[in-house]
Amino acid sequence: MSVKVRKTATKLADGRDLFYFDDSPEYVSGEKTRRLDDPRPLKDRFAPIVDEDGNEKPVTGPWMRLDPLTGEWVVMASHRMNRTHLPPADANPLAPARPGAAYQDGEIPATDYDVVVFENRFPSLMVVPGQDREVVDLDGEEIWKTAPAAGRCEVICFGPKLEENLVQMGPKRMRTVIEAWADRTQALEQMEGVKQVFCFENHGEAIGVSLHHPHGQIYAYPYITPRTATMLRQARKHREETGGNLLADILAAELRSGRRIIDETEHWALYVPAAARWPVEMHLAPKRDVKAIYELNDAEREDLAHIYLKMLAAGNKFFEVEDEAGNKSYLEIPYVMSWHQAPVGEEREDLRLHMQLHSVQRAPGKLKYLGGSESGMGAWISDTTPEKIADRLREVYGK
Amino acid sequence: MSVKVRKTATKLADGRDLFYFDDSPEYVSGEKTRRLDDPRPLKDRFAPIVDEDGNEKPVTGPWMRLDPLTGEWVVMASHRMNRTHLPPADANPLAPARPGAAYQDGEIPATDYDVVVFENRFPSLMVVPGQDREVVDLDGEEIWKTAPAAGRCEVICFGPKLEENLVQMGPKRMRTVIEAWADRTQALEQMEGVKQVFCFENHGEAIGVSLHHPHGQIYAYPYITPRTATMLRQARKHREETGGNLLADILAAELRSGRRIIDETEHWALYVPAAARWPVEMHLAPKRDVKAIYELNDAEREDLAHIYLKMLAAGNKFFEVEDEAGNKSYLEIPYVMSWHQAPVGEEREDLRLHMQLHSVQRAPGKLKYLGGSESGMGAWISDTTPEKIADRLREVYGK
Repeated sequence: MSVKVRKTATKLADGRDLFYFDDSPEYVSGEKTRRLDDPRPLKDRFAPIVDEDGNEKPVTGPWMRLDPLTGEWVVMASHRMNRTHLPPADANPLAPARPGAAYQDGEIPATDYDVVVFENRFPSLMVVPGQDREVVDLDGEEIWKTAPAAGRCEVICFGPKLEENLVQMGPKRMRTVIEAWADRTQALEQMEGVKQVFCFENHGEAIGVSLHHPHGQIYAYPYITPRTATMLRQARKHREETGGNLLADILAAELRSGRRIIDETEHWALYVPAAARWPVEMHLAPKRDVKAIYELNDAEREDLAHIYLKMLAAGNKFFEVEDEAGNKSYLEIPYVMSWHQAPVGEEREDLRLHMQLHSVQRAPGKLKYLGGSESGMGAWISDTTPEKIADRLREVYGK
Repeated sequence: MSVKVRKTATKLADGRDLFYFDDSPEYVSGEKTRRLDDPRPLKDRFAPIVDEDGNEKPVTGPWMRLDPLTGEWVVMASHRMNRTHLPPADANPLAPARPGAAYQDGEIPATDYDVVVFENRFPSLMVVPGQDREVVDLDGEEIWKTAPAAGRCEVICFGPKLEENLVQMGPKRMRTVIEAWADRTQALEQMEGVKQVFCFENHGEAIGVSLHHPHGQIYAYPYITPRTATMLRQARKHREETGGNLLADILAAELRSGRRIIDETEHWALYVPAAARWPVEMHLAPKRDVKAIYELNDAEREDLAHIYLKMLAAGNKFFEVEDEAGNKSYLEIPYVMSWHQAPVGEEREDLRLHMQLHSVQRAPGKLKYLGGSESGMGAWISDTTPEKIADRLREVYGK
């Protein structure tokens, strides 16, 4: 980790990990705020469940099943339905603790923080200690496989303030977020059984985000995800046919063509991919062959902090809206930001780190819905072209 | 075609095909209603476009690009943005023509109909006569391929009345819809370059449907869709490993297990698949090895008309809601209904006809959104289990 960020590890009252990432040395969360530990009366999350008759039942985690039609694991996190101790609707569980409050209704014990990462309280992927991880048949049928969804789900808060987004926080804070992504990716890749680490952000109500505090998520999957499996298959085929690395060759082609490039810096290129499928879509790739965020060097991380924020700002200028009085403003777009990192293991070589951002916003007031072609057949229909998307982004980029 | 249905073919004013499927012999659309032809002053859809200076430009159709990251074709139907002559917002373009109206604002010339199928006016897939169908490089780069999206998009209206859904129309009309699906699938499979015919229905505002008239769509793709390609890969692997047909073996396992079966008739089985990924999901499969709807025999079609409507009715009883006065009712769910038919050509043998229906409704007022895990990584997380879905469906089925 860079000297610019100090990491402090602690545990929440129910045993979950929490990590502070502080971006100035004189300010240390927990120490300064005197609340490193979680004062809530939460019981250990793996303590056996006691029923009405006093009988103990072991805690069960999420499971997953292998869909024979697609060869894809589907996680079943129905245990999340039994959520208890949910914060009141007006509370923000990602806010720093209120100073002096006797009981915390939030997740973060410190009364201030810069960037904080902690295990999700209601995870879709979780390792339950002592649970056998073996893949077994379902209903005694060989055609169906089931196994514990033994991974990990973490939440990353980008800053302490509900109202301040990443662009407003600026490049110094963004750099801390990058350090946190790097740190967590490296740590989670070491966890037993983890095949792939995914840092992402769901942003906006239109894609179902209910917490408005600026935050993202980090998933450690115990399997290679369908999209990564597809890219690996393409990358392998490309290597066998041409000897080249697929992602390197796509980036080189985008730079040669130049038609859809939004920005190019010393270390990064930002572009609309030639086969963009969403109404707004951008890919951001490092020029060097890097497999994961933690392999980025200092200069690449610094460069990324700036181009990443310019990318977000451009997305939020894509659509101009006018109110009844004729006042113009921009529409903040909902988006999904996905860091594609190479999987752990032998298939690592064929992939490269890159980011894909997409929005379902087609126009002000209009969303792209996934109808039968997309959700039934996986066949995407776009109402625009990558060149039109790029033209608009270039118009507003950096302005 | 069964003797029970009479098909009448005609053309719309701009040259598109339209087919009436009438389900009682004494009632023939067009003849009885004296309006077989489209009286609208629409110009031929392939007539060259004349610009302000009088220069002629040939009409261009939708294009598609092969995404090198996924190996998937993405259709770019940006020509649809230039829609003209859209009907007024309060008009229903799928309603029968108004008797005596001088100008039609709808798509159907006859003043009444039973079931009608016609080419979509703003299709995502279209063959433009004379357009070369060759796959070519984009921007001179071998890594990107582009080609005309030379397929076909048809609309199927299930009945003449805006307010009447399929369940209310009943099995006789449903049988006519099945005949129309069968007829169109068989015809479209014969079209040059068509690899796969997809009959589907997008239902409900929650998935973006703007026309409330009961209707579905039929797409003829010039490529094998990603979902079908995935199932084919799985089916081939399954055949090589076990010698069996994947879909036959899944159906047999579901019937043996019985745990998720909703209904079983002489010819069909309705079940929640063991790895269901959506909050509500049902698969409906014929017991016989059938590749496409038109291969179903008379008894299978008759049986299907009944079980299909019972399936729709059960979906619409899945969620009970209560108003402020304490009155209970059921929530009509949004859904995507997808008929999976085997593709044209050598890979046909490994697949079988079956239907998949899914809904994004998680609970009353709550939708399943595709966040980063689903839309970024293709990794589905379900908040329920297939067994819970099946239990609820069995509770309300046939009631």
